[in-house]
Amino acid sequence: MSKDKVQIFDTTLRDGEQVPGCKLDTKQKLVIAERLDSLGVDVIEAGFPISSPGDFKSVQEIAALVNNATVCGLTRSVKKDIEVAAEAIKGAKRPRIHTGIGTSESHIKHKFKSTQEDIIERAVAAVAYAKTFVEDVEFYAEDAGRTDNEYLARVCEAVIKAGATVLNIPDTTGYCLPEEYGTKIKYLKENVTGIDKAILSCHCHNDLGLATANSIAGVINGARQIECTINGIGERAGNTSLEEVVMILRQHPDLNLDTNINSKLLYDTSLMVSDKMGMVVQPNKAIVGSNAFAHSSGIHQDGVIKNRETYEIIDPKDVGVSESSIVLTARSGRAALAYRAKNVGYELTKLQLDAVYDNFLKFADRKKEIVDADIHEIIETSQIDMSNLA
Amino acid sequence: MSKDKVQIFDTTLRDGEQVPGCKLDTKQKLVIAERLDSLGVDVIEAGFPISSPGDFKSVQEIAALVNNATVCGLTRSVKKDIEVAAEAIKGAKRPRIHTGIGTSESHIKHKFKSTQEDIIERAVAAVAYAKTFVEDVEFYAEDAGRTDNEYLARVCEAVIKAGATVLNIPDTTGYCLPEEYGTKIKYLKENVTGIDKAILSCHCHNDLGLATANSIAGVINGARQIECTINGIGERAGNTSLEEVVMILRQHPDLNLDTNINSKLLYDTSLMVSDKMGMVVQPNKAIVGSNAFAHSSGIHQDGVIKNRETYEIIDPKDVGVSESSIVLTARSGRAALAYRAKNVGYELTKLQLDAVYDNFLKFADRKKEIVDADIHEIIETSQIDMSNLA
Repeated sequence: MSKDKVQIFDTTLRDGEQVPGCKLDTKQKLVIAERLDSLGVDVIEAGFPISSPGDFKSVQEIAALVNNATVCGLTRSVKKDIEVAAEAIKGAKRPRIHTGIGTSESHIKHKFKSTQEDIIERAVAAVAYAKTFVEDVEFYAEDAGRTDNEYLARVCEAVIKAGATVLNIPDTTGYCLPEEYGTKIKYLKENVTGIDKAILSCHCHNDLGLATANSIAGVINGARQIECTINGIGERAGNTSLEEVVMILRQHPDLNLDTNINSKLLYDTSLMVSDKMGMVVQPNKAIVGSNAFAHSSGIHQDGVIKNRETYEIIDPKDVGVSESSIVLTARSGRAALAYRAKNVGYELTKLQLDAVYDNFLKFADRKKEIVDADIHEIIETSQIDMSNLA
Repeated sequence: MSKDKVQIFDTTLRDGEQVPGCKLDTKQKLVIAERLDSLGVDVIEAGFPISSPGDFKSVQEIAALVNNATVCGLTRSVKKDIEVAAEAIKGAKRPRIHTGIGTSESHIKHKFKSTQEDIIERAVAAVAYAKTFVEDVEFYAEDAGRTDNEYLARVCEAVIKAGATVLNIPDTTGYCLPEEYGTKIKYLKENVTGIDKAILSCHCHNDLGLATANSIAGVINGARQIECTINGIGERAGNTSLEEVVMILRQHPDLNLDTNINSKLLYDTSLMVSDKMGMVVQPNKAIVGSNAFAHSSGIHQDGVIKNRETYEIIDPKDVGVSESSIVLTARSGRAALAYRAKNVGYELTKLQLDAVYDNFLKFADRKKEIVDADIHEIIETSQIDMSNLA
């Protein structure tokens, strides 16, 4: 049975670019957009055209450049926003307008000082107006994570009737627990008339560290698009990490879901985006962190040297990392020392290894990490007969 | 009804310290241990005493220093390890030995070249031997995430009989999905005779970005201890982030679970650990990243200025961050500009704001972030009557 496809909607250039302090210029955005297209994302959200003349221009140039992916522009439920977005994306091979409005009590009351019925009217009007420009219209129900499910279903039903092709259900504040978010998607799948005419989309934020888990709960329960960014960047604690959701679906074949992503480009893409945005990726970031495939404890090193799968679920080559690294520290055991010593030319006997290991521990307790040059010194200053090592 | 307590087992100084390239010296470890004790963690895993003389010394000094938390030392299921750990922690007010062995097929076959029955014997012997030194013995079933549940239940039952007080169920490779991990904990709760004599503990790794979600699934299903680190540091993609699980339980009162953590110390503790370990925290890290409470998009800023809860689920003061920041970029709207202009002394009328905003956008399209000094220049170079601003 062939797997169901989950569309990857990349918003690195829109929600990701909202990161304080890391605005990209148009040229940088074009390089990233081209790379996202090669990576195999299905949709590139290129920007929010009404927000500034610079952003309008970027969206316009990305639309002209991208070959395969749909190019999408964000709008509020405001006529002028929609007109400007339509103009910006009109050169795209596959244009999409992404419009929407807040649907939670907090948004309706505090942000819009409005009513539930009025919000539905404005949502429908926005979608219908966007449809006069493009066929592909995605609707977002902002703060859907804190929106009552019954009302949310009514909003979804109304905008599908108005022609929405994709329904974005954002957990805007990053509040939901995975079960709660999954249940919300399931409720919409089961209670919205006409739901088969649209794709449900997960757009999760990471304020509690749950964006990835929530997105996966969403697709398990019937959503077929995930909105995400490279390295999980984005406003506040960021968005769902593209690399994490892609690799979860790939490593869990039982879910019977997959994406069009060429995972071998993930690591390079992460480096490129981090570099262009000037946003550092922490070493312990899943999949793309510099330590993601590095082992330093003795127990783990011993296991990995015997059989990689003892401690690694992903072959680093599958995400574009050349190999796992065995890092020598005071937490390393004899197996790791022997392995690294062999890499630099010493085949130690068991007795030699015992003597060298004691000397190694003294070095390692003083020094954070033992590099190849240290290994020579450690072996040469150990009290062992080295005639067989010459 | 009072909430059920979830014990926080901090392993920053053991599993966290296994991060390649960031070994701490004993003095640094003592400062961190003291801070963890003030933070309110229930257990401090201080190290792996057999691994090196330096680590032994650190565990010994931490044991003598800590006032409130239990101090724990790691061992393999090896007599010598247990003896050395017992010696290292004997000065602790509340000492715990953490011993265990791999239980998955991969570990039994490739690492130990052993059988399921032999592994149970070795597990029982290790726990029984540890009990001769201390009352509080935690057992880990390494790679429990990939261990068959029926066999895992037999291991748990056997070590409880041998006196284990805590059962650590590690997802060592970070492979489990939240539902799968939660189901595993539930299975053990329901199928292990004597389970009420021990606490089930979640020890999750972040290789797929799911450590936090898995730990929460664990406590929802009956576990009552979470093993975690500050900033989620640790080998490969790291461990569960202490700050994330603590704040999830606090922000979701319906779960009826809480910890003893003083959340107001979270941000400072994160900075301290990052600094001492030399491990950078990415700006978009949940709870403690430098951008976790920063808003730069116009739509969000407008919402937050009207009512903080529109876009923020956590009051930054609750985690020790003084206030949310409104960062001005080309994505910012009039409300944010007016707010920041007012902060530096300009009360703009609506007409003035319109004129200044156009000028602001030109500046912001050229510059990544607008600081207070820029605001003066922007206002002064705008074509407006400034007589009311003098």
